[in-house]
Formats: sequence, structure tokens, C-alpha cells
Amino acid sequence: MRPNIVLFGDSITQESFRSGGWGASLADTYSRKADVVLRGYGGYNTRWALFLLHHLFPLVKLFFTFSGSTKPPVATTIFLGANDAALAGRTSERQHVPVEEYRENLRKIVLESTSFSCLCTFHFIIIVSPQECSPTMLIVLITPPPIDEEGRMDYARETYGEKAMTLPERTNETTGVYAKGCIELAGELGVRSINLWSKMQETDGWQKKYLRDGLHLTAEGNAVVFEEVVKVFKEAWLDASEMPYDFPHHSEIDGKNPEKAFQQKCL
Amino acid sequence: MRPNIVLFGDSITQESFRSGGWGASLADTYSRKADVVLRGYGGYNTRWALFLLHHLFPLVKLFFTFSGSTKPPVATTIFLGANDAALAGRTSERQHVPVEEYRENLRKIVLESTSFSCLCTFHFIIIVSPQECSPTMLIVLITPPPIDEEGRMDYARETYGEKAMTLPERTNETTGVYAKGCIELAGELGVRSINLWSKMQETDGWQKKYLRDGLHLTAEGNAVVFEEVVKVFKEAWLDASEMPYDFPHHSEIDGKNPEKAFQQKCL
Repeated sequence: MRPNIVLFGDSITQESFRSGGWGASLADTYSRKADVVLRGYGGYNTRWALFLLHHLFPLVKLFFTFSGSTKPPVATTIFLGANDAALAGRTSERQHVPVEEYRENLRKIVLESTSFSCLCTFHFIIIVSPQECSPTMLIVLITPPPIDEEGRMDYARETYGEKAMTLPERTNETTGVYAKGCIELAGELGVRSINLWSKMQETDGWQKKYLRDGLHLTAEGNAVVFEEVVKVFKEAWLDASEMPYDFPHHSEIDGKNPEKAFQQKCL
Repeated sequence: MRPNIVLFGDSITQESFRSGGWGASLADTYSRKADVVLRGYGGYNTRWALFLLHHLFPLVKLFFTFSGSTKPPVATTIFLGANDAALAGRTSERQHVPVEEYRENLRKIVLESTSFSCLCTFHFIIIVSPQECSPTMLIVLITPPPIDEEGRMDYARETYGEKAMTLPERTNETTGVYAKGCIELAGELGVRSINLWSKMQETDGWQKKYLRDGLHLTAEGNAVVFEEVVKVFKEAWLDASEMPYDFPHHSEIDGKNPEKAFQQKCL
């Protein structure tokens, strides 16, 4: 059976199977080699994401599992923070999570998902550090993208007219603080990370090139995420071009004796 | 946990997560409601697809299943025949399967996948007809698309130059015979079907509008498949807009008392 790659995050993950989306591109790249499982929750911050953890990585449901798969993924991307970084006192205050709590929530998410991976691997509950478990599951923390404040304001005016917010609900500077916290935490836990906030800002005109409403990604923005994720996966030996097909390539099947190819590959 | 929708087929299914692909569009439509599982095998005919059946619908692996999910899908699309219809005596003869065998192979695929669904539902092996099982899994047979013979020849010349085939390896007329066989079998078994071969030819200029190389789909061709599949799913009460989210929509979460929304939805 194919391994799973889980994409866990907010709307930027939830939308990632739209045309040109980074999730769909990953699923296409790993076609016949791994299944890409979409777990994107639009509007969620890390505080709310914690409520989902024991459903996504179900420690207690290892057997009799008609309700779903219990095998640990080979890789999980954790792409949260864009909503945590919504400013207190502005229109999206409800989603705001202080940066210290954001880091601690991310830590819990990494530790719980990694423990699930270890549990499935060893069949015992063992208290372990992420490093000890790293061979069983690749975790990639992705920072929120940068914010184009002008783009956010334009979008708000187009959508809400006169009722639009008069001050942006997110700023690039504050989101940068969350991105920094995410990268620091990844270093501390010894898991891989992608600093999307920095990466996108290396390109002139990133505001309109990569962001369609100052926050969510254009097709080109999706391409950046896809390329960065594939790069990290390759560095961690999860290279699609080197992974086996789940069943024989059609060119390996002898038209007159097809069972031979399946006997060799499927036993 | 979310239900699964399995897409089983050949290259037209395997490619369906490319930009604008019908599989990715389905995954996006059912986002947070069902998981779309891609099982496309480029170049495969129904004879070879039979070798995969007990892996895709594993009757004997109901328990202790670290290797994958055993829950039956809520829906499976079976989209095969484009390779079976390759002509004997031409360059793709290796893939050719006579139309009578194509029908019998399709019948086995429907019966085996439906038996799996029933087995999981009742926890016993019960010999049943597809009709008796239909509430547990929706099966949709999709015919191959029409063939643009001129497009196939152009593609061959572009790809192989002077070594290109001099006669098309598939004809629209012959593929139409397979499409007819597929639709008749669906009627006989009482499962739903999409006559893509006929549907596409209702539109003027279908040859270039829907097919990029005389056989595989353009973005517009993908859109036709997506719309037809969604239509059949809706008729069978598998309408994404009426299915519940797996977890609360973010607007339902009280920022000051978030656990309330999760207690209501996740117990």
C-alpha cells in the first residue's frame, strides 16, 4: 500500500487542490507512489487546530478501524500561523493567538503527530523526542506567507464596500514575527522548515505576483510552495523520482504473459 | 473520519490531478467532507486492472491494518476502456482487449469492489448482487472519451518523426463500440454510468476542444468529466453542498470558548 503525505494547515492548505494548487501538484508528482491527504481548515489558528490533533493522529484507535487509516504518514506539512498573526483589536481579532502561544501550540502539534508515528512504528507507547522518531515521519513546518497590506485593504473594499475595515487586520511585520517563531521552533525541535515569509519577499513584486488578496496565493505563489516542499522532501530522501511505483509500469507488462510482472512486483 | 471517493482508471485518471484536472477539482469540491483517493494507472487495460483488484479492495485484510485503510469508499469511479480499444494489428496492439472480454473484466471489477463494500458493511461474507449493495457504495462506470484520429496522427508525427505510425492505433468508431458495451453493462448491473464518448461529441470542435493529443484531455475536457461526475454524484445523494464538514467551520467557533464548537461536532 502507498504511504501517506498529510497536508495540515489553514485555508492556504485547504485551497491547495484548486487549479494550479500546490497540494494537487504534489499529488500529481507522487502519483502512484504516495497518497496526498488534504487536511486544510480555512480560518483555523493553532489554538483551534489542537482540537483536531487526536482525530488526525488517533493514538487510541489503532485497531478495528473501519473508520479510517491508522498507518502513520511518511511526511506531514504543518502550515499554520496566518490566522494566529491576525492583530488583536482589529477586525479578525477572534483568530488572533499571541506569538508565544503560537509557538507552544506548534510544539504540541509536532510532538503529538510524531508520537503517533512512533507509536505505530514500535507498537508501544514510548516517550520520545522528535529526533528519535525522525526516521518514521518527516515533519515540515511552513511559515505563513508575507502580507501585502495594500492588497488586503483593496480586497476588503471590493468585498465589503463602505463597510470595509479601515485598518488592515494583518501586517507584514507582525506576520514576520510569527514566521521567525516558527523557524526557531523547528530548529529547536530538529524538524525541517520552510521560511515562506522570507522566500517570497526575495522576488520583486511579490505582493501581486504571489498573493491574490494580500494573503492567499496566486498560481505562481502556489508554485513557490510546491517547489519548496519538493526540495525539502528530496533533501529528506522522499524523492518521487526515486520511489517505486505501487504496481508495474505498463511498459513492464508482457501482453502475452501479464501475470509475470504482477507476481514480481506485488508479492 | 471522512469517507473516501476512489478514482480507478488509466492515464486519464492518473493525470487528473494536473492543473485543471477533474480529480483535483473533485478533491477541492469535497474538501473537508470526503477524501479523493487517486488510483489511476497509465497504459492499463481492464485485463491488467484485474490484477490490482484485491489490493485496492482487500477482502482479507480487514483487521490489524497498519498497511492502509479498510473502510469501503462511499463512491468509486471506474474509468477504463481507452486502452482496451487500441486496435489489434496496430502499434498499440499489446494493450488491446476484445470488447467481450472488456465487458466481462468490467463486470468482475464492479462485482469485486461491491462485494468489498458489502463485506465491510455487514462484517460477514455475503454473496450479493450489486443492487443489494448499492446503498453502501456508489459505482460510476465512465466510458472512454472519443478519439480524434487526426489528432493521434499529429501527435505521433510530433513525437516520433519519421518513425511515427502510418495508421492510427485507435479509431473513434471502435472506441464507440467499447463505450456502448460499458453503458450496456452498467444498465445490466444496475450501476450508474457516464457516456463520455457521446457527451463530448455533442459539442462542435470536440476534437481539439476536449482532447490535447486525440485521446488525453485538455483542461476543458477535464471540466466535462468533472461536471458529469458531480452531476451523477448529486443524483445519488452524494452532494458536497449537503454533506457535513468534518470539523466546525471557523465561523462557528467562539473565540473565547472554542471547545464548545468542538464538543458539539466531534463527539
